[in-house]
This record gives sequence, structure tokens and C-alpha cells, in this order.
Amino acid sequence: MMKPIVFSMPGNELLSESILIGLEGERGNFTERQFPDGETYIRILSNVEEKEVIVVCTLHEPNPKLLPLFFICKLLKDLKARSICLVVPYLSYMRQDKQFNSGEAITSDYFAQLISSFADRLITIDPHLHRRSSMNEIYSIPCNVLHSAKLISSWIKNNIQKPLLIGPDSESEQWVSEVAKDAGAPYIVLEKLRRGDNEVEVSIPQTEKYKDHTPVLVDDIISTARTMIETLEHLKHAKMKPAICIGVHAVFANLAYDELIKAGAKEVVTCNTIPHNSNKIDVSKILIDSYKNQ
Amino acid sequence: MMKPIVFSMPGNELLSESILIGLEGERGNFTERQFPDGETYIRILSNVEEKEVIVVCTLHEPNPKLLPLFFICKLLKDLKARSICLVVPYLSYMRQDKQFNSGEAITSDYFAQLISSFADRLITIDPHLHRRSSMNEIYSIPCNVLHSAKLISSWIKNNIQKPLLIGPDSESEQWVSEVAKDAGAPYIVLEKLRRGDNEVEVSIPQTEKYKDHTPVLVDDIISTARTMIETLEHLKHAKMKPAICIGVHAVFANLAYDELIKAGAKEVVTCNTIPHNSNKIDVSKILIDSYKNQ
Repeated sequence: MMKPIVFSMPGNELLSESILIGLEGERGNFTERQFPDGETYIRILSNVEEKEVIVVCTLHEPNPKLLPLFFICKLLKDLKARSICLVVPYLSYMRQDKQFNSGEAITSDYFAQLISSFADRLITIDPHLHRRSSMNEIYSIPCNVLHSAKLISSWIKNNIQKPLLIGPDSESEQWVSEVAKDAGAPYIVLEKLRRGDNEVEVSIPQTEKYKDHTPVLVDDIISTARTMIETLEHLKHAKMKPAICIGVHAVFANLAYDELIKAGAKEVVTCNTIPHNSNKIDVSKILIDSYKNQ
Repeated sequence: MMKPIVFSMPGNELLSESILIGLEGERGNFTERQFPDGETYIRILSNVEEKEVIVVCTLHEPNPKLLPLFFICKLLKDLKARSICLVVPYLSYMRQDKQFNSGEAITSDYFAQLISSFADRLITIDPHLHRRSSMNEIYSIPCNVLHSAKLISSWIKNNIQKPLLIGPDSESEQWVSEVAKDAGAPYIVLEKLRRGDNEVEVSIPQTEKYKDHTPVLVDDIISTARTMIETLEHLKHAKMKPAICIGVHAVFANLAYDELIKAGAKEVVTCNTIPHNSNKIDVSKILIDSYKNQ
């Protein structure tokens, strides 16, 4: 394997450093700043000619990040980089993957086309593949899809006594059951009715027999956290022990994190796919292994 | 001429309405909103099949605007619009048009390539063509470049007694002299030394003989307004009358507008290429004429 040069887009420094060390790569040296009028300036100082380049850029709040990412990839190609592998631990625009109503933009396809036009390869973790079975249906570049399930179950096993895993909906059942099995724990899934972007109603199956367990709410993305917050309320009513909330991706729209704590979460734990104080599960090893074994 | 359907990206409603009326077009009906996680949702309700479409989208603070614009144009094509004409009264990414230092991204080229990939034509006003002589050097789609000089000189003629036009640098001399000539007024240009994005030093040629004139500072873009603010200070020292500041594009980075007023500008006047309280010169007519005469 050729040693890559690793470029960290702003905010991705911690994870980039782990990847850099794990791959014994070289740190991509560059300047990225904003002019006072909001335009981006980019200058690459490393010699990237004929080198394999990794650009680490997680993509929550994606709109302002896309153009700088596009610019740096175009520049890398102009500076004759041999290949560009995007490491996108959290990949956005995966949800609108069909027209629910006529005239809707299938943003997941458009976004994929754009990304595929300026990168050669993409590595991501637990993308929200709803109705698509594979990334190849939307991305025209090779994609490595990695899973955090084993990392999460191992964190649960090491940190929680008698866990009861609670998944958000029937769609998540396969994933939750896998995490539960590896953690050696029982699981249940909620019945869920979505009423809009912000409103969700849930019901929890009979929990009487798990009174001595610690509820562990798990989900792939914690965004508004509506489902988790409502579930926490139900669990309090059912006089269950204080719950722990685990998410792969710490999107946390608006005040979602504070609201989770206020709703009685004993602890909120996420993977470091999006930098956040709640990051306790490190994904760098699976990213490194994936790059090595390409 | 086919009557176009006019879509207004958020914030461009006023100008879009004037264009719509001037062209006797149809209002493009669509929804654009943000999900709580920062992703954009777009749905077009108008029937655009085989129609000529105008999308009005001025591009100051461009980074968060690009992806929604890309999405709507891709969607318009999928919905079989015959053509997409972007009306971009203020066009960003025109300044970094060469590598001043090795390894710099020539963002003006990259941005132009991206825009050219999803639109069929572009109409813009006074783009900051520095070292390029024509838009065709960077844009691969046809571009109509319009000029606000006549609108500005006519505003000056109608509103200012005995104006003395003051241009920011020798580079602007041709443009300023044109505005001055049409306004029937004398002009001078500053000698200017730029020390960075925010710092500029100016000197004003002998102004003794214009003591009874109203100084009118003119520039294409008012961004940080450093040059104008320093010029205002010099004019105060020289005991000139209170000055009026005119810009084509009201970019106003940070607190630039307030600082101009604080520095003693009697009035700040701009064209409505970027929506702002200072807009007093209407560009809709030249946009309408340009579209009609394509």
C-alpha cells in the first residue's frame, strides 16, 4: 500500500490525526479560509503529485461544506494527485431517495452525482440506506460502507450492566438485533408513527419483565431526537431505570442534545463520525482497516 | 419570445417580481425548506415541461446557496424544462482568477465550471472581471454581462448637486470616468495600497478646487468598505462636504454598512443586485431588456 497524504477539512482534525497515524501517512498541508465576503480561499502546500490522497470531511450541515470540498478536490486533481478518496464518516442527503410527491427533488441522487464527479472513491459509516439496497445504486464511484454495530455492542458490553436495547422502529430491527446479539443483551423495538419532521409518537411494548435492566436506546442518527425524548418519557412512566442513549451519528439538530439530557437520559453516547462532546466510540480503526484492505 | 417561468430563490423575491412583470412571465411555484439537520428539501409545483425557465439567484455569501441552486436546476431538467437561464445579479468567485502563489485554487474557474454544468445561460451585472477580458474565458455557457454605469450616472444627475466622483483606484478609472461623463461631473481616482483582505491605505489627489462639490465615492463592490471608510476620513480632514457612497453590489461584509455611516457617509446608495436597505437604483429594466433581446 502506498502511504497516503491525509487532508483534514476544518473540524475533522481529531479523526484525521488518528487515520494519519494508523496509515503511517503524511499530513496534507493546506490553508482554507474565508474572505470577509464569505468566499473560500484554498491553497495546498504539500506536494501531491502522483500521490494517493485522502480528504476527511464529515458532511452534517452539508450545504456550506460542499463548495470548499469541491474546490479542494478540483485543486488536488490540477496538482496531479493520483487519486482522491473521500472519508465521509457521516454522509448527508441519504433520506430523500424517492419522490413521495410529484415534483420533489431526489436530492440523494443529485448529491451523489455531484460527489461522484470530483472524487474517485468514498468511505463512509452506516449511511442511511432506506429504500436503496446499495450505495452503487446512487454513487457512480466505488463506495466502502462500514458498520459501527460491533463497536457499539462492544462499548455496551464493557460499560453497561444488564442492558436492554431499545430500537426506534421495525425498520431498525435487524440492526438492533445484531448489536444486541453481540452485546449478549435482549432487545425490543418501538412502534412509531411519524407526524412530520419534528413530531413522532411512540409506544413501547410491555417492559415489566425488564425492570432490573438498564434501557439503552439506540439509533443510527440522532437528529431532532424526538423519538428518543418521547421514549424516555414513556420509560419514566413505566418506572424503568434511567436510560442511556446511543447514536452512531451525532447530528443533534438545534437543542436536541440538551433536550435529551433534560428528558432524563443518564448518558448520551455517540461514535466520532461527527465531532461532538458525546463521542465515546472511536471509528478510526474500521476506517483505517477499510483503506488498507481496499 | 416565449413567456418564461420565473423561479425566485429565497431572498430574491422583489427583483424576481419586477422581472416577472416586465417579461409578462409566469411565477415558478415551488417549495424550498431546510430539514432540522440542515439538508434542503425542494419541490416544484409548476409545470415546466418544454418551458423556458429563469432562476433568479444572487450569489453573495455563496457557499450555502450553491447546493440548493444545483438541486433546483437538476430538478428542472428532470422535469423537462427546455432551458434554464440563471439571473445572477451579483456573481461571486470572480476575484481569485489566477494563482498568486503556487498551490492556490483558482476558484473563479472551478466555480464557473460547476455553474456551467447545470445551467444553460447566465445573465449578470458588472462582474468583477479583473484580469480576464471576458466571461467566455471562464464560463462555457453563454453569458450576458450587463452594466449599471448608466443607471448610476442617471441617479447621480437626478439626486446630487455639483457631484465630484471619486473612484477607488486606477483600475476603476475607465468605469468611473464613464459614470462621470454621463452624469456631467468631474472625477478623480485614489491612489491605493492594499495590505490584506481588511487593510487598505489611500491617498487623495489635491481636492482644494472641489470644495463646493459633493464628493461621491463610487465602487463596483462594497465589501469590507475599508477604502471608502478611509477615504471618508481623508475627506473630513480636507474639510470637504459630507460624501455620498455608491456601490453596485451591496456585499457589506460584517458591519461595513454601519461603519460607513459612522465614518460620516451622508448617504449610502446601491443597486438592487443584492437585497439591502441601501438599494435605490433598480436594475430590473436592464435585466428584462437583456432577456428579451437574447
